[in-house]
Amino acid sequence: MAAAPHSDLLALRDALRAFAEARDWGQFHTPKNLAMALIGEAAEVVEHFQWRTAEASAALPASDRAEVALELADVLLYLVRLADVLEVDLADAAQRKLAINESRYPVDKAHGRADKYTQL
Amino acid sequence: MAAAPHSDLLALRDALRAFAEARDWGQFHTPKNLAMALIGEAAEVVEHFQWRTAEASAALPASDRAEVALELADVLLYLVRLADVLEVDLADAAQRKLAINESRYPVDKAHGRADKYTQL
Amino acid sequence: MAAAPHSDLLALRDALRAFAEARDWGQFHTPKNLAMALIGEAAEVVEHFQWRTAEASAALPASDRAEVALELADVLLYLVRLADVLEVDLADAAQRKLAINESRYPVDKAHGRADKYTQL
Amino acid sequence: MAAAPHSDLLALRDALRAFAEARDWGQFHTPKNLAMALIGEAAEVVEHFQWRTAEASAALPASDRAEVALELADVLLYLVRLADVLEVDLADAAQRKLAINESRYPVDKAHGRADKYTQL
Repeated sequence: MAAAPHSDLLALRDALRAFAEARDWGQFHTPKNLAMALIGEAAEVVEHFQWRTAEASAALPASDRAEVALELADVLLYLVRLADVLEVDLADAAQRKLAINESRYPVDKAHGRADKYTQL
Repeated sequence: MAAAPHSDLLALRDALRAFAEARDWGQFHTPKNLAMALIGEAAEVVEHFQWRTAEASAALPASDRAEVALELADVLLYLVRLADVLEVDLADAAQRKLAINESRYPVDKAHGRADKYTQL
Repeated sequence: MAAAPHSDLLALRDALRAFAEARDWGQFHTPKNLAMALIGEAAEVVEHFQWRTAEASAALPASDRAEVALELADVLLYLVRLADVLEVDLADAAQRKLAINESRYPVDKAHGRADKYTQL
Repeated sequence: MAAAPHSDLLALRDALRAFAEARDWGQFHTPKNLAMALIGEAAEVVEHFQWRTAEASAALPASDRAEVALELADVLLYLVRLADVLEVDLADAAQRKLAINESRYPVDKAHGRADKYTQL
């Protein structure tokens, strides 16, 4: 029998659900509150880059990179938790959005341009 | 032979990398710029909840929920892309952060409380 | 001779300009960087409210209110500085936006409703 | 008799208070909701700069600059409104924060450096 396919996102969802249940945190985990926590973690990512040039942002010292990695993880954890309480299948939504982006940004029009699809 | 384990996050990373390469978008995808795009998408999630009560945020109409699902996807896509350009293993970072949270928020201390670990 | 009218915003602009010049910070104060700093400060405001209910957010303990006051000040300082480097007259822009809002949200249509003007 | 000193921020506060009262929007204007709206407006500022280089962000085309001016105004309007519902004197808080920054960033130590005060 083949092993069941493994999904990072579903495994994380289950781990976070168990984490919240064990602590009776469902009461705090409204979508509204989780959305606020999500943007707070995104802001901590931004903070690492705000005074760095584009070049310096691409060449972080190892200790900063390790800190940013954990900030990215925080964003992911709240994102997965928020999707769960909204009963959104995050992997499926990502596939659908990828397909939308493929059609909004055809290679021949979008090549080398940072414009929004409405401007292409 | 068992099926190779599947990772959502690695599959997304590869799809996004190919998407960016086909469009020559590497020049725009500095960590600094991607961090800005990430928080912009997080803000679009927040916007869906800002005038809703906690109760209403947990009972979105189906059409709003479908929109939010795609906003969550946008956050995930930029998050995965940012991790890639920083050469961060996002799934690994998430596991490490989960373990940190387990030790910061022991069940007996954190049960039913929304306080930060530094206040427990 | 009447005293020249006083503007909080212009006085702040001048103080911040002098502050930055004395420290040779003009090199860091690109609009891009200042926009990132601005949202970082807004996120620190959000953080004070993310786990509080609507009711609790309206009844902050005095020590939290004092902290939030300084976070709001941080937002204002970066906002005024960003407007200055963009050569935007912030007070004038605010008056223009107020007038736009008056016409977008007529009292009879917007009364008691949180909908965006495009939905009224 | 000298003209009464004029405060931009108090005048805006009063205009926004009247605007909200006329529409019965006090019910929506909890600090929690206003904090969310504030960061949403800050994100719209960020969006103008996310794909621009530092140089391009400092040389916006006139039409973009006019749009950004109104986004900055939106941030200011929500900031002033949030301070009002929290009963925070924003001008006073800004002066106090300026003084704190003066002591945290002495000219001789902070000259030409973007480091946080804790790193100076």
